[in-house]
Amino acid sequence: MEFALNERLAAVGLEVARIHGCRVLLKDEEHFPWFIVVPEVPPGTEDLHQLDEETFAEVMRAVRKVSRFVEAHFRPEKLNVACIGNIVRQMHIHVVGRFQDDPAWPQVVWGFDGKMSYPQGEAERIADAAREFLGQC
Amino acid sequence: MEFALNERLAAVGLEVARIHGCRVLLKDEEHFPWFIVVPEVPPGTEDLHQLDEETFAEVMRAVRKVSRFVEAHFRPEKLNVACIGNIVRQMHIHVVGRFQDDPAWPQVVWGFDGKMSYPQGEAERIADAAREFLGQC
Repeated sequence: MEFALNERLAAVGLEVARIHGCRVLLKDEEHFPWFIVVPEVPPGTEDLHQLDEETFAEVMRAVRKVSRFVEAHFRPEKLNVACIGNIVRQMHIHVVGRFQDDPAWPQVVWGFDGKMSYPQGEAERIADAAREFLGQC
Repeated sequence: MEFALNERLAAVGLEVARIHGCRVLLKDEEHFPWFIVVPEVPPGTEDLHQLDEETFAEVMRAVRKVSRFVEAHFRPEKLNVACIGNIVRQMHIHVVGRFQDDPAWPQVVWGFDGKMSYPQGEAERIADAAREFLGQC
């Protein structure tokens, strides 16, 4: 069965890449560099421990590469990496760079309601840089 | 150098087990079955992607086993698994079982401020069950 990206995930921003059997999305949220890794797994596989060993390893490779990009490109104070999915059940892993002067610090970004889109062209520039980085590592 | 558990992590509840180079803690919070996996890694290693491949794989084995215990023992609606650490920087991964009738649902548990301790003996009973499960898998 062909994988179909959940509509709410598709609406968060740009699709950056497909690596290790995952879609990598960039959320259109200027407050935080915020990527979402969506494994192309069948519906109903919602929690990480439900993945078989090999698929789990592949998904983690994707998450670690995206984490390294966020660190290299944005130099955040801390990364927040989480698989939550209480609302959108299609499995997805957040990789978020956090800064001491970001508007949610030191609290988590989930539930923060001060959304601000990137200025025109900025999300595309970040996505291009991410594609280049992910293609090399 | 000997590993020293951060004081704030040590205070969250019970130490359940040591598996795959990690301490497994049970938070004393009756609202949610909430485990915390603390890799015994040197200070300054705060983000998952900073772990070498083998250590990362071991930590993930611990996280997956704890996740399987939460699923088997509590039958939650969803698991929330996250490495955040904005406040307590010693690396730790939350594994939290979530239910549609828990007091934070569908929002995240971080920032929820309605703490309730387990009734006497209950945390110990859960810890015993966890030890038995983790010792077998």
